[in-house]
Amino acid sequence: MASTFGQLFRIATWGESHGPGVGVVVDGCPPRLAISREEIQAELDRRRPGQSRITSRRDEADQVEILSGVEDNLTTGTPIAMLVRNSDARGGDYEEMRTKYRPSHADFTYQAKYGIRTVPGGGRASARETIGRVAAGAIAAKLLSTVAGVEIVAYVKQIGDIEAKVDPATVSREKVEGNIVRCPDEILASAMIDLIDVTRKAGDSVGGVIEAVARKVPLGLGEPVFDRLEADLGKALLSLPACKGFEVGSGFAGTRLRGSQHNDPFFPEAGRVRTRTNRSGGIQGGISNGEDIVVRAAFKPTATILMAQETVDVQGNATTLQARGRHDPCVLPRAVPIVEAMMALVLADHFLRQRALCGRMT
Amino acid sequence: MASTFGQLFRIATWGESHGPGVGVVVDGCPPRLAISREEIQAELDRRRPGQSRITSRRDEADQVEILSGVEDNLTTGTPIAMLVRNSDARGGDYEEMRTKYRPSHADFTYQAKYGIRTVPGGGRASARETIGRVAAGAIAAKLLSTVAGVEIVAYVKQIGDIEAKVDPATVSREKVEGNIVRCPDEILASAMIDLIDVTRKAGDSVGGVIEAVARKVPLGLGEPVFDRLEADLGKALLSLPACKGFEVGSGFAGTRLRGSQHNDPFFPEAGRVRTRTNRSGGIQGGISNGEDIVVRAAFKPTATILMAQETVDVQGNATTLQARGRHDPCVLPRAVPIVEAMMALVLADHFLRQRALCGRMT
Amino acid sequence: MASTFGQLFRIATWGESHGPGVGVVVDGCPPRLAISREEIQAELDRRRPGQSRITSRRDEADQVEILSGVEDNLTTGTPIAMLVRNSDARGGDYEEMRTKYRPSHADFTYQAKYGIRTVPGGGRASARETIGRVAAGAIAAKLLSTVAGVEIVAYVKQIGDIEAKVDPATVSREKVEGNIVRCPDEILASAMIDLIDVTRKAGDSVGGVIEAVARKVPLGLGEPVFDRLEADLGKALLSLPACKGFEVGSGFAGTRLRGSQHNDPFFPEAGRVRTRTNRSGGIQGGISNGEDIVVRAAFKPTATILMAQETVDVQGNATTLQARGRHDPCVLPRAVPIVEAMMALVLADHFLRQRALCGRMT
Amino acid sequence: MASTFGQLFRIATWGESHGPGVGVVVDGCPPRLAISREEIQAELDRRRPGQSRITSRRDEADQVEILSGVEDNLTTGTPIAMLVRNSDARGGDYEEMRTKYRPSHADFTYQAKYGIRTVPGGGRASARETIGRVAAGAIAAKLLSTVAGVEIVAYVKQIGDIEAKVDPATVSREKVEGNIVRCPDEILASAMIDLIDVTRKAGDSVGGVIEAVARKVPLGLGEPVFDRLEADLGKALLSLPACKGFEVGSGFAGTRLRGSQHNDPFFPEAGRVRTRTNRSGGIQGGISNGEDIVVRAAFKPTATILMAQETVDVQGNATTLQARGRHDPCVLPRAVPIVEAMMALVLADHFLRQRALCGRMT
Repeated sequence: MASTFGQLFRIATWGESHGPGVGVVVDGCPPRLAISREEIQAELDRRRPGQSRITSRRDEADQVEILSGVEDNLTTGTPIAMLVRNSDARGGDYEEMRTKYRPSHADFTYQAKYGIRTVPGGGRASARETIGRVAAGAIAAKLLSTVAGVEIVAYVKQIGDIEAKVDPATVSREKVEGNIVRCPDEILASAMIDLIDVTRKAGDSVGGVIEAVARKVPLGLGEPVFDRLEADLGKALLSLPACKGFEVGSGFAGTRLRGSQHNDPFFPEAGRVRTRTNRSGGIQGGISNGEDIVVRAAFKPTATILMAQETVDVQGNATTLQARGRHDPCVLPRAVPIVEAMMALVLADHFLRQRALCGRMT
Repeated sequence: MASTFGQLFRIATWGESHGPGVGVVVDGCPPRLAISREEIQAELDRRRPGQSRITSRRDEADQVEILSGVEDNLTTGTPIAMLVRNSDARGGDYEEMRTKYRPSHADFTYQAKYGIRTVPGGGRASARETIGRVAAGAIAAKLLSTVAGVEIVAYVKQIGDIEAKVDPATVSREKVEGNIVRCPDEILASAMIDLIDVTRKAGDSVGGVIEAVARKVPLGLGEPVFDRLEADLGKALLSLPACKGFEVGSGFAGTRLRGSQHNDPFFPEAGRVRTRTNRSGGIQGGISNGEDIVVRAAFKPTATILMAQETVDVQGNATTLQARGRHDPCVLPRAVPIVEAMMALVLADHFLRQRALCGRMT
Repeated sequence: MASTFGQLFRIATWGESHGPGVGVVVDGCPPRLAISREEIQAELDRRRPGQSRITSRRDEADQVEILSGVEDNLTTGTPIAMLVRNSDARGGDYEEMRTKYRPSHADFTYQAKYGIRTVPGGGRASARETIGRVAAGAIAAKLLSTVAGVEIVAYVKQIGDIEAKVDPATVSREKVEGNIVRCPDEILASAMIDLIDVTRKAGDSVGGVIEAVARKVPLGLGEPVFDRLEADLGKALLSLPACKGFEVGSGFAGTRLRGSQHNDPFFPEAGRVRTRTNRSGGIQGGISNGEDIVVRAAFKPTATILMAQETVDVQGNATTLQARGRHDPCVLPRAVPIVEAMMALVLADHFLRQRALCGRMT
Repeated sequence: MASTFGQLFRIATWGESHGPGVGVVVDGCPPRLAISREEIQAELDRRRPGQSRITSRRDEADQVEILSGVEDNLTTGTPIAMLVRNSDARGGDYEEMRTKYRPSHADFTYQAKYGIRTVPGGGRASARETIGRVAAGAIAAKLLSTVAGVEIVAYVKQIGDIEAKVDPATVSREKVEGNIVRCPDEILASAMIDLIDVTRKAGDSVGGVIEAVARKVPLGLGEPVFDRLEADLGKALLSLPACKGFEVGSGFAGTRLRGSQHNDPFFPEAGRVRTRTNRSGGIQGGISNGEDIVVRAAFKPTATILMAQETVDVQGNATTLQARGRHDPCVLPRAVPIVEAMMALVLADHFLRQRALCGRMT
């Protein structure tokens, strides 16, 4: 179980869905960063279930306790441990899953790999694991905004076949938070909400795409050849439950262009080297070029649906499963702060790595 | 410069395009694996430039020398160092690039990050860096085939707008090697070759998609939560030059389906748990489920084109650049063995990790 | 702050002396290992302050809570998080230390490095940090005893100038626990206790040496060249507060012998290769040879003493400090279970590494 | 085979004694450091065999080739690969060792661990492996001297029972290089040389202690809790062949003192916080305090001696072995530059880590 992420700004998450709690240890955060419990809690509130009618109705306050590493709202340079107790855990909803594998869920592979698995809530495979990521990401984001003014904004770009047009250069957190699906296009947001509602009532689920932008990222982050910035961002987002694809800049669409159409011409502007277009998505040769970093992550429809499905039981016999429980019909609205957190974690890590490699001694 | 990849089956590549040579150190390969220089050379031959009329005309034999770690064609458990000398290096083609940044290439970001860069051949940003990956990948692939019969096959799936239909379950290496573009669909392969030819003559470049399949992968590889198999495969492919996107299984297309359409029903077959469909791409909950692992990587059109482009010089002034040199108009045919190598490296690493976590002591 | 240790059996400790608590996350423990809270608590009880008249009188029950990764007394293969709340924390004892650096303590260097430090209890530099190590070590030791019957026993070998003769091949945990100083030589133990008592009354402190043995260690653990078993054991013990030296086998005394006197002759015994002597300390070429692994760690006298000392204040002025508080006059009796824990952590890690490198797939 | 060392200034060594060559890849060296091949060669010359009558008579020039990462005597920030070809390799001397294990050598444990081993020269267990360390260490030392004026000097402190008194604060490289045993006490150096000569003629070997000092080390290097500076230095030196013990500052002798005798009083001097004594060895709480860092490493007598010894053969039968070949009767004179290299590697790594954690953005 590889629950550690990052080289220098390093996190270790832990915890099962229906156990005592979930949490994270952040090791490597620079000292004297101003951070309050409330700033971290605000991000967890954006992630928590029960926040709107289109999310899981499991009702968890998800209150975070900082156990170490912060004194008088300043980091001390020591590990920051954070704990969120589980509360509204109804193990009873999972009885049938004790003996039957949910299709396209982690039940079967966990059992096959470990020879043991935690049934209630999916245990470690639960989306509750991402609580630790969001709490750690809040600190990473604060570091980035403090040292370099970095702004990270994610938003729902597509739900099912409904796809919004959003300008990453100007989209604001306020706009994203303006509706419960977290799509800054208000009209399409409304359609998306309707689609999720209908899907939920049918006991089904729906997928989509989240787009995220990081603005004012310092020039020079990312380390060729293996830890290119896009490679680490890709790994970060592909490590999220239900994520099946990742793109940076022009992505898959860019494969259909010629080089002469795809290249981003350079031009000088106010002493900086800028690009006229941004098909590179802010990264060239694996290193940030100072333009907006733009990425997209594909999320499949949630595996747990309330319809009858063909499956096998733990003895290997054919059977049918109809799940119960309080599941998200669509993970994307709650995944928005998680995507932001992962992006912040990668950028904070590379910020420190760049400081090590090319920085000065204070 | 993070030139190390893998946790247990670990490689470190080194070398610049026009320096004395390039190479790799493989640390962590199990002892007593049968491997010959010829097996490694065969993969390098598939990668080398000058192999056909649609690749770079730089003519390099790329002969590999094994410097350590192998005795009498058996690995000894010690680091395997391999060296390929550079030979056909014409620095003169790069004079103009000394003072001007190529759009969408690594010139500007390397200079900005390191304050210094190697101009001839793009130095470390050259595709020659992947020689070490291919040599190491040949060993990883041999390990996987020896211990578990794993078969890895990659192929060109799309060039520009030309997209082939290929069945990952049955495609063979022989079919892929049947034409110079490495697309197993012979008719479309011919069209792709024409497209690349036309593009090359125009001094332009073209992108595309490579698909890869790993068959007979043992059940249980991959470590949630951060080192999910798809996350590590994604990072591996996104670390390749020009790669802008990654998908596993249904990928971005799967985001448009409902859960009831997307889930892969389980059924029992000969004592194994199988899935009727494979939208999961052989990975569930971050862990291999025994089905074929299917991934796709998007490659943008090569940045270096022979047409005049708007750019800036190293003093920050607006200027125009028209590149010379022997560049690939399309990286995909030569990237096929590189994609296979990266896939083998990730799977070999996770094979060893699984053996550590859940294995037995001999 | 590098609070992570181990490659495969990996721990991350966190927590300050006078904060909400201290703890650890264990990542990489194999699934289905039987372990109970009580087994872990038993080790913490051996480490806790206030256990006898020669240890700190701070009275902490140090009750551990397992937050994740264990279900029905079986590990699940997921991260095991453990928490110990701080209780008997008297910050008032530390007022003077807020403005004055204790000689030979971590006060000055923490302030210089981080620009901030936690004063009460020394914060992260407190020996309370080792609680997480002991909790994690209990799991590592259980793994080793379960899979290979490994026995680890540490004991006080020397206090000040009083040095005991102990046979590592036969010493038992029961014998060690037979007195409060944890020296298996009963007569010298009594003298050691007297020495510590006298020293405590004088407001002074005293150092010594702990010896530890691991018996029935599988042949083949340890990875040349950098992760030799003695190198990792050395790092593990030298990472303990107050540890200033490390030896394996003959150690410093062995430097005075000739090769013909020092070499351990091999002989066959019951199908095994044995050595007649054990100056190698059970490790040859960095790899365990199946004999007892014997190491020693030197602990300096505790820095915090209750006598007046010359020092400087945080403004850099010369001053005098006379510490108050409940400090250990001698860390060694309580360090015995900590040394065992570190040894177990290193051996468990190398056990998994050996299984990865040279093992079989189940 | 863990042949990688360091977190940020990271090296990977490779190569066997009698194979094509040995070498190293340095990954993470900051760009624009001035370094020449000659500076690296100078350190290798101090390490090479055949340099005097008291070292192995194997005559190797050990000429280093820089294969990548350096251009016009400046590092480029990319991996620096270096190669030294083996030349004077006489495999014939090792015929008997093919079937018999040398006592206290790595023969038996390598065979037991890997199931295969390279016989000639001991393969990877040969001291030739340290060539890569010395080459990399030369770069690390140059980095440290360039950015902070750090001076590292190691010297032979003891051979057999002959122990020199040396003042680490003032000892110079010139003084150390003034005689072939590398002991700055000229009179005792002469006695040491005689002792080694006599031992060599007897076909025996002798051990000793190397002491090393690092002066002008910046305040603040080292990361509690696991990567304390003394823990990483200890691991570095204990990873050297034949090293059986490590001390920092007062070491084992300090365990016999009281706290009131051992503590280093602070005093102010020219705006700096200094200590009146240096029993801490320049490290407090795991972090450098600005005083001289002083460490000692114990080296056992070389295992390979030319006298008949009891052993077993590879079939497990009792037998007798009398080694041939050109072995060092005492490793210490040649180990001096190796100890310096390891110390430089650890300090350079922690220098970069400190810059990452507490540095500024340029």
